[in-house]
Amino acid sequence: MSTSPRNNSDEPVVTSYALAPTRTITTDGVTYAYRELGPKGDIPVIFFVHLAATLDNWDPRIVDGIAQNRHVIAFDNRGVGASTGEVPDSVEAMADDAYTFITALGFETVDVFAFSLGGMVAQDLVIKHSQLVRKLILTGTGPRGGKDIDKIMGVTYWDILRATLTRSDPKEFLFFNRNTTGRKAGKQFVARLKERTVDRDQDMALRGFRTQLKAIVKYGRSTPSDLTLITQPTLIANGDNDRMVPSVLSEDLHQRIAGSELVIYPDSGHGGIFQYHDEFAPLAAEFLGK
Amino acid sequence: MSTSPRNNSDEPVVTSYALAPTRTITTDGVTYAYRELGPKGDIPVIFFVHLAATLDNWDPRIVDGIAQNRHVIAFDNRGVGASTGEVPDSVEAMADDAYTFITALGFETVDVFAFSLGGMVAQDLVIKHSQLVRKLILTGTGPRGGKDIDKIMGVTYWDILRATLTRSDPKEFLFFNRNTTGRKAGKQFVARLKERTVDRDQDMALRGFRTQLKAIVKYGRSTPSDLTLITQPTLIANGDNDRMVPSVLSEDLHQRIAGSELVIYPDSGHGGIFQYHDEFAPLAAEFLGK
Repeated sequence: MSTSPRNNSDEPVVTSYALAPTRTITTDGVTYAYRELGPKGDIPVIFFVHLAATLDNWDPRIVDGIAQNRHVIAFDNRGVGASTGEVPDSVEAMADDAYTFITALGFETVDVFAFSLGGMVAQDLVIKHSQLVRKLILTGTGPRGGKDIDKIMGVTYWDILRATLTRSDPKEFLFFNRNTTGRKAGKQFVARLKERTVDRDQDMALRGFRTQLKAIVKYGRSTPSDLTLITQPTLIANGDNDRMVPSVLSEDLHQRIAGSELVIYPDSGHGGIFQYHDEFAPLAAEFLGK
Repeated sequence: MSTSPRNNSDEPVVTSYALAPTRTITTDGVTYAYRELGPKGDIPVIFFVHLAATLDNWDPRIVDGIAQNRHVIAFDNRGVGASTGEVPDSVEAMADDAYTFITALGFETVDVFAFSLGGMVAQDLVIKHSQLVRKLILTGTGPRGGKDIDKIMGVTYWDILRATLTRSDPKEFLFFNRNTTGRKAGKQFVARLKERTVDRDQDMALRGFRTQLKAIVKYGRSTPSDLTLITQPTLIANGDNDRMVPSVLSEDLHQRIAGSELVIYPDSGHGGIFQYHDEFAPLAAEFLGK
């Protein structure tokens, strides 16, 4: 362990993700890159990121909204961005990595904010290490064995092709509807990801991207998990027209996780929480603060 | 300029690409990574690599075959693998980078061995800086404005999708026929690329890959170059069934480059020269040695 955020209490509090310093911690032979912001001392909120995503893929409006009152930590999965090692070929292994990373930082209890693949990883983590997680936010995601999750590969490659042909960011196709509202929201989202201008992360590698896609397909074709094992307060959110992880799977999660809250945003896709960040960021902050 | 291979004449001669040291040279704010092998002192052979390729993408059977008697230098394009900077969005800019790299190493005359995108870059380089290149080998490539080069994007994404679904390397689909001979040749080629076990290069980033693809499409839709400006002895080679850069474009290059030699291998695709490395490596070495 090379550093612990708990030892840095003399530093000024950063509350803008664009300015959050990138740190590293090495454990079990893997160096994890992470960024942290917000006031320290209480239970941190760990952000679990999506397919092909690095530290530069979090919407600052959502991170900043939560970091006003909470210690937020975003990290690069193993083999992604500035984290070393090989990209794991299963969601279970990614959950083991998340556990390794969190405990290496010295935390015994955390809240989890997860999006898409991150939400799959978070579910596996919570089921295996229930005591580690206090509250859970699952966005744009679905359960192990969820119907049509295994179609993500075709959708993803098709949208990357469309985006490449139109010189756009693939996320504009993958995360947002192709109507006026969605196109505008997509452009704005992509622009927000560029607000950080210094110390940006390394791009996702093509090979690791393919490995992550395969891991998601495998997760989609797996035996379902027993979601009654998730007893944490859980907030579930998505757009109503998610083509990557079908929106109906958010309903499914809601039915199977007792006491969970569900928010489905209209006229939006996989990136519904980013399109509706004005509403969602305070909602998530309030849920975590309760 | 941080180093020059000409100053390293006291080192032992490496003739195996798997053992070639990786070096860097910094010029115009870009650090280029390269590997060199073979006896130094005479005109070097510079290898121009393909789409999405790093230093780890050269078939050692072909490199080694030429490095027995020639100083071989392979390099990472700007923004690819261990070379720094942004991936250029045009083939012209890649050719300018190649010129910058070669002249930074202190060479006034080189031979060029180019494959696929590398062959497009090489043509632009030769047309702009004719005096720099003595002999030219163009493999699996086509001319600026070549018919159907702009279809490469669909073919490439489709084959990456197929490869991801079947847990194969995309090059097995993109470079080889899907018959018994091609499948076997593809597996063997991919295995040969793994012969180097230490000091391997960084993977191609997804974003840079997309930028390169767009550059190739733009090249395919450009006004043709005047290939009569290529007066260098030129060897052209390809498989007879290239789906990425149609084989007929090798014929076209042959018609338009005066005095060029053409070799088309049967029952093979874009990676025909790798499938027929037993024949092609000595042929290329002989052509360069004439």
